[in-house]
Parts: sequence; C-alpha cells; structure tokens
Amino acid sequence: MMTTKQKKQVKAGAKKSDGVVKVALLGFGTVGSSVAKVLAGSKFPGIALTHVYNRDVARKRDSAAAKFVPSTAKWTENIDDVLKSDVDVVIELMGGLTPAEGWLRKALSAGKHVVTANKQLIAYRGTSLQRLAAKHGVQLVYGAAVAGGVPVIPGILQGLGGDRVTRLSGIVNGTCNYILSRMETGAEYATVLQDAQQLGYAEANPSADVDGFDARAKLCILSRIALHAELNPDEVATQTISTVEAIDFVYAKELSCTIRQVSRAQVDGTRVHARVAPMLIPLSSPMAWSHGTQNMVVTSGNYGGDVVFSGHGAGGEPTAVAVVSDLLAVSQGAKAVELPVRKRQVTGEFLAPHYLRFVVDDKPGIVSSIAGALAKVGANIDSLLQRPGYPKHRLPFVVTTEPCLTGVIEKAIHSIAKLDCMLERPLTLQVLVPEDKPE
Amino acid sequence: MMTTKQKKQVKAGAKKSDGVVKVALLGFGTVGSSVAKVLAGSKFPGIALTHVYNRDVARKRDSAAAKFVPSTAKWTENIDDVLKSDVDVVIELMGGLTPAEGWLRKALSAGKHVVTANKQLIAYRGTSLQRLAAKHGVQLVYGAAVAGGVPVIPGILQGLGGDRVTRLSGIVNGTCNYILSRMETGAEYATVLQDAQQLGYAEANPSADVDGFDARAKLCILSRIALHAELNPDEVATQTISTVEAIDFVYAKELSCTIRQVSRAQVDGTRVHARVAPMLIPLSSPMAWSHGTQNMVVTSGNYGGDVVFSGHGAGGEPTAVAVVSDLLAVSQGAKAVELPVRKRQVTGEFLAPHYLRFVVDDKPGIVSSIAGALAKVGANIDSLLQRPGYPKHRLPFVVTTEPCLTGVIEKAIHSIAKLDCMLERPLTLQVLVPEDKPE
Ligand SMILES: NC(=O)c1ccc[n+]([C@@H]2O[C@H](COP(=O)([O-])OP(=O)(O)OC[C@H]3O[C@@H](n4cnc5c(N)ncnc54)[C@H](OP(=O)(O)O)[C@@H]3O)[C@@H](O)[C@H]2O)c1
Ligand SMILES: NC(=O)c1ccc[n+]([C@@H]2O[C@H](COP(=O)([O-])OP(=O)(O)OC[C@H]3O[C@@H](n4cnc5c(N)ncnc54)[C@H](OP(=O)(O)O)[C@@H]3O)[C@@H](O)[C@H]2O)c1
Repeated sequence: MMTTKQKKQVKAGAKKSDGVVKVALLGFGTVGSSVAKVLAGSKFPGIALTHVYNRDVARKRDSAAAKFVPSTAKWTENIDDVLKSDVDVVIELMGGLTPAEGWLRKALSAGKHVVTANKQLIAYRGTSLQRLAAKHGVQLVYGAAVAGGVPVIPGILQGLGGDRVTRLSGIVNGTCNYILSRMETGAEYATVLQDAQQLGYAEANPSADVDGFDARAKLCILSRIALHAELNPDEVATQTISTVEAIDFVYAKELSCTIRQVSRAQVDGTRVHARVAPMLIPLSSPMAWSHGTQNMVVTSGNYGGDVVFSGHGAGGEPTAVAVVSDLLAVSQGAKAVELPVRKRQVTGEFLAPHYLRFVVDDKPGIVSSIAGALAKVGANIDSLLQRPGYPKHRLPFVVTTEPCLTGVIEKAIHSIAKLDCMLERPLTLQVLVPEDKPE
Repeated sequence: MMTTKQKKQVKAGAKKSDGVVKVALLGFGTVGSSVAKVLAGSKFPGIALTHVYNRDVARKRDSAAAKFVPSTAKWTENIDDVLKSDVDVVIELMGGLTPAEGWLRKALSAGKHVVTANKQLIAYRGTSLQRLAAKHGVQLVYGAAVAGGVPVIPGILQGLGGDRVTRLSGIVNGTCNYILSRMETGAEYATVLQDAQQLGYAEANPSADVDGFDARAKLCILSRIALHAELNPDEVATQTISTVEAIDFVYAKELSCTIRQVSRAQVDGTRVHARVAPMLIPLSSPMAWSHGTQNMVVTSGNYGGDVVFSGHGAGGEPTAVAVVSDLLAVSQGAKAVELPVRKRQVTGEFLAPHYLRFVVDDKPGIVSSIAGALAKVGANIDSLLQRPGYPKHRLPFVVTTEPCLTGVIEKAIHSIAKLDCMLERPLTLQVLVPEDKPE
C-alpha cells in the first residue's frame, strides 16, 4: 500500500509521459555555464535543457559558453518564463538568499524539483525549503553545496545514515586552503591572496572566504545531514585566517604540524561544539594531505569509525558534476534519504591544546608574565619555542598549552594582550588532535 | 504523468500502510549480528526486524548477539518462512553464489526489496539481478559490497553520475592491506599472515584475499558503476601478494614507494584495462596513505578530477553501517540511480614502469644477460639497485624499467627465469604512477 506522501511524490515525478525531463538553469555564470557544457558533452538521454535565465541575458547568449546550450532552449531575463513554464527541474546557480529563496519557493510550490549549489541558502533556509518540497512531493537536492564535485553530501545521506556520526571536520573552502598551503612553503599572506585573486580563486573582497563565512555555511549543512543537528550559522564561531603569518608555519613545522582553515563540529549531548578557524593539524593526520584548492571532509561514526572524502571541491566543472549528478538522480525519480534533524545550541568551545604566538619587544620578565596569566586561568604550558635569528625588539615566540578550553585561553590572552611589550595581538590557534574531546 | 515502471515501483514501495517496514536477515554471522546490533542501538522508527534465517539456527539464537534481536522476531532455518512471509526487505549476509542467488531471485520475484553485502554475487550476477528487480519494481542495493562502511558505492552512484569517470584504483581488500602495511615495517609475509589469521582478519585458507579474487569482484562492481563497463570477473588478471618479500619493501623505499595490493581499471575505447596485483605506489600518492585494514578508492573523472574515498572497509560494524544505510534508503522509497552499462572486453596490460626483483647466485654476466633479454623485447632499463650486505650466492637485486607493457616484460621474464643462476622466479610489479596510460 502507498502512503499519501508517496502518491504525491510520484504525481510530481520528474519523468514525464513523453519521457523527457525539462530543465531550466537560473544563473549562467561559472557553474551554470559548466553545467550546460557537461550536459552537452554527455547527452544524457531524456534530459532537455529548455530554459536559461539570467539578468541581462543578451550578454550570456552572446558568450562563448552559449554554444553548449541547445538551440531550442529559451534564453530569458524574465523569471516568470521559467516559473510559469512546464519545466520539471529548476537548477539554481545564482547564489545568495535573495531573490533565489523566493523564486525557489515558487518553483517548489509549482511542483518543480529544485537542484541548487547555493550553500548560503541551504544553510539558512534548507530545513524550511525541504519542508516545502516534501509538502509538494518534489525533491530539493544540493549535492554541490559542500565540496563541489566530491560526493560528500550524497555519500553521507545515502551511506552513513545507519551510523551515529558524532564528529566531523573538514577543509571546505578551497580559497583558504590554497592560501594556507602556499604559505606552508614560505610565502606571505598578502602576496598569496593577491595571486589567488589573479587566478580567480579569491574574490576582490575575500572576506566570505578568509573570515570563514563560506565555510560556516557548509559546516552547518554538514552538521544537519551528518550529526542531524540544525545550527544557526550566525551562532557558529569563526576566526579569520588573515592573522596567520609565515612565522606560524615555521613554528607549526617544528611541532610536526601545518595550518589549515578547519571547520569542525562535534555532538555533546544536546549541544554541538562548532568552529571555523585556522588550526594546527598534525602532519600525520589525513587533514594535512589536502593541498591547493582540494577539499576534504572526515566524519567519525560510532560504528563505522572515520570516513574520509576528498578531491577538487571548487571550480565550474567539478561543481557541475555534482549538479548534473543530482539532476540525473532527480530525473530518474530517485529520492534522497530524509534523516531526522533537531535544533541544537552551539558553542565554539573545544577542549584542545592551544598554540599561542606572541610578537614582543623583548624585555626581562615577559615569559614569566605570560606564564603567570596562563597559570591564573588554570592553563598548563606544554612547550615554549623561540627560534634564533629574530631581532630582540620584534621577537616572535610561541607557547603551546596542554588541552584546555578555548574560552579559558582567550581570557588569559585578554590580559596578556595588555602587556606593554606586546607589539601585536597574540594569535591563538586550536590544535586539532585526534583525542580532542569537547569540554 | 507516471510511467508504468514508476507505478510498479510505488506499488512495491517498502513503506507499508501500517507504516512499518518488515525486515528479514539471511545469515547471522559477523555482519548479520552487527546489523542487528546497529538496528537495536538506534531504534530507527518504522523498521522492524521480523525474521532471522540461518542454518542450524539454534546456535545463533543462543549466541550472545541474539540479545540485539527483538523478542518478536522469528528465528528460522527454513528459508520459506522468509520467502513466503510478508517481509518487505530481505537482507542477505550469508555470502557465496549458492544458495544466495536462487533465494534472492525468489525474494525479488515476490516483490521484496533486497539489500546485500555479497560482492561475489553482485560481481557475477549483479546485472541480471538488477534486471529482475526492475521487472518487479523493487530495489536491489549493495552499498556494503565494496569498502564496507565507506560510502563508495552510494557516492559514485549518486554523486559522480554526471562525470565521465575513465579510471579508478583502489585498495579494497583489508587483509592484504594489513599484511602489506605490516611488511612495510620489516615483518615477513608468513609471520604477518599468521597474525592476521589469529586476529580474524584472514581466513584459514587465505587464497580469496591474497590471490586477489575478493578484490577482483569489488573491482568489477566498481567498474560497472563508475566506468559503466561490465567485466567478466574471471577474465580480470590477478597476481598474488604471497610472493612479495620483506626485501621488496626495502627496495621500494629506495624508490620512494611502498607496496600495496591495488585494484585498477581504466577505460580505453571499447576495452577496459583491469588488474588486481601488488604494485609499487609512490609515497606521495594518496594510495600510500592507506594503512592497516583501511580501504581507499580513487576515481578520476573528465570534469571532476580525482575523488578519494577512504576509511575502515572491513569488520562487522562498519559493514553493518552500509547495510543499515541501504535499508533506511530502501525503506523510505529512495531509489538508486540507474546508469547505462556496456559489456566490455578486458585486458590486464598497462603501459607502466615495472619493478623486477631477482634473487641470483651471483656470477659474472648476469646483469648483461638480463639487460640483453629486456633489450630484446624493447624494454629500457631505468635503474639498477643492489643493496650491500647480502651473500653473493643468494643475492637479491632490482631492475626498474621505463614505461612498457606488462606483457612485454613478462615475455622477457620468461626467458630470464630460465637462466641457471636464478634461484627464484623473478618478481614483476607494476609501478602505479599518475601519468600511467594504458597501451
Ligand atoms: N564556483 C564554484 O566553484 C562553486 C562551488 C560550489 C558552489 N558554488 C555555488 O554555485 C552558485 C553559483 O556560483 P558561480 O561561481 O557560478 O557564480 P557566478 O559565476 O557569479 O554566477 C552567478 C550567475 O548568476 C547570475 N545572477 C546572480 N544574481 C542574479 C540575480 N539576482 N538575478 C539574475 N541573475 C543573477 C549572475 O549574473 P551576472 O553575470 O549578471 O552577475 C551570473 O551569471 C553559488 O551559489 C555558489 O556559492 C560555486
Ligand atoms: N566481514 C566483513 O568485514 C565483510 C565486509 C564486507 C562484506 N562482507 C560480506 O558480507 C557477507 C557476510 O559476511 P560475514 O563476514 O558476516 O560472514 P560469516 O561471519 O561467515 O556469516 C555468514 C552467516 O551466514 C550463514 N550461512 C552461510 N552460508 C549459509 C547457507 N548456505 N545456509 C544457511 N546459512 C548460511 C553462516 O552460518 P554458519 O555459522 O553455519 O556458517 C553465518 O552465520 C559476505 O557476503 C561477505 O563477503 C563481509
């Protein structure tokens, strides 16, 4: 016997009686044009690109990538041409919350399946959109929203639903990974950022990437599907990578570590510890394998242990692979697994060793002041590193602590930062060790 | 509008009107009992384990693991109790072709979905069983058949269908990986095999693992879903790991490599190059990361580049994660993506550098005889390695060649093996380099 819900799903099944699934692209930029290219290159039977929507569409129709769009497709800058048409699947590749959200709501309500790569939209509105999709018996899929062409989202949804995943960490922003892995070989932040901008890896305003907001959206999506925990992205702690300096890689190496922007989350009863920040990663950890724009996600489950997904996350074509794979699934009537999700409080606290880097005008008594401030909050020093060859009046040195809470360290740093001899705000990084437990 | 096929799928949808999906386990061994444990631990709503079938079932009902089976479930040693019941999903965890195949055909024909971890069955009969499932509008899923708890199969099916994957390589036999990664640290084959048997990683008769037949079945499944190429497992070349010796790891290290059992396949027009063999892997390659019983699969696509999946492939609980994830998907009416598959001719030839290890009773002229035999077939020597400290009357040394065909090398080895001074059959290993192209 069928449930009403199942009947609805079938009523709205993508494969129509004439055997052709009609598809509209919203947004013909980097990913949108690559989707057209992949579709043109493989000629998937039964799938027809019938509409391309973009503002100022004439520019797009005249672009080189337009050759991948079938001549029968309609180019339009009027969204109603899509929403009021008989297309079966709407692929949204514009990005941003507005107007994407409103348009996708209309599409879902009109019984159209939606495929999107829009991580901000899914992070902030995913649950509500999913509910709307279910109500109308259609699919909302977003395999490209995290790690682009690496099938992390389908892998978790279809392959880890049977586990109880309690922890995950990822390198999910290719721009930050490119910058930090170049800095690992000695380059300075500002130089590498400029290169990244020239190569098209970083935006003119790089804040969304380097300050962690892009990764935070992805972390929230991963938490929802792997940890079954709904987090408010605005409540997830972020820390910029822009204060990491070349010297930090020198000290990290001395500690057998490197530095990456890590997005991590961990279930702790009814709370979730979550944070996006540059962190020290032991060179022996799989997370340290990720170079250049590569993405990597590691999940830890009670039954299955650690699972690693990695590959090229960013760029038009890898992302288009995820979008087209979603489209194929939807057009065949495949239905994504639905997992239960709960709203969860979030904290940025982790119980972890910490790396503290100071730049001081060296005077007697500095180490004892720092040690005193740390002792006062109960943080134990694990090591003190000071490399030779730096001027006394601008001396960088490093303290590592035994595992303690990030908030505790921050309290000590608050008072240490006020010392006269401190030339910069001290840099505090968590160390990602496998034994890490939340407080 | 719905197609007839879709209507059938819904008619046979797993979720029944009373909201409970009834599940039978065939086989209550390592994986079967772990599936019961995972189901008991997470209490997935709407799923009820109603039957446990095993031969001699009293033993099983009295075992410690029986506590994970609901008291309402029926224990039986009569397969008809399952096949003629109203169970919705049959989970097959017995292994082997017979009687599993016949029973699953009956289950599918009776409108029951099938979940299985049986790689031999899926490698040899997967296409035919899939056709039978489609005919009866039910699902046949086998996410656990490759790499156990690592979602390689769902990841490829749901997430890479949009790419054109042309090449894949994997470490898919945990036993071989355990043996070879222990040998990497200096141990001898025979000792490690014994340890593996004591730890339960290897069977009393280890042939299926060490001679490559287990990995070959997995390679054929991966070829089908990723390369869309149907191979006859019996035609895929295999080479045993049992002739690899501790000395080979010494020489491999000198070449910045390690040795692993690699299963690889590559599309070449209408043919597929496929081989399961111990190979030299550069330490810089992700494939060298895999230690102990870990599994790893790397796919290479035209659009998305390389994607890496890794984690704990073997063991009851990781494998049960894949089985239960499949069960969840099926019970929600999720439908696996169907990709087109073509029968393909297979060859074990690869154009690759080769590693040749000889053990000789050292006499003048040996190197020139070997070089002569290689020159005769057109293989160029790349390096000649001979470590000090070995007796002249039992001297191991190594020759590496520039890329050439495996068959060409084998022809030279055939004549070299006949030299009087050869104390063992020379060992020939392919070197897995990223630039590898098939002939
Ligand atoms: N690029 C990647 O590697 C990657 C990876 C994963 C996910 N994604 C996601 O994929 C989506 C698209 O990214 P992208 O890199 O393709 O961006 P993009 O190159 O900027 O393309 C966006 C396209 O949408 C159009 N567009 C944007 N806002 C619009 C509006 N309000 N009305 C009409 N048209 C609008 C743009 O037109 P104009 O040309 O007029 O601006 C442009 O053609 C984003 O959600 C992004 O986060 C991208
Ligand atoms: N173990 C792993 O790590 C792993 C990983 C991936 C996939 N798999 C696959 O999962 C399946 C099960 O593996 P396993 O490790 O659980 O094997 P197992 O421990 O040997 O369990 C098999 C169970 O099925 C029963 N059985 C076997 N043949 C039978 C027959 N003809 N009639 C009735 N009962 C029969 C066995 O009963 P007896 O006790 O009487 O022999 C045993 O209880 C296999 O296909 C295997 O390839 C296993």
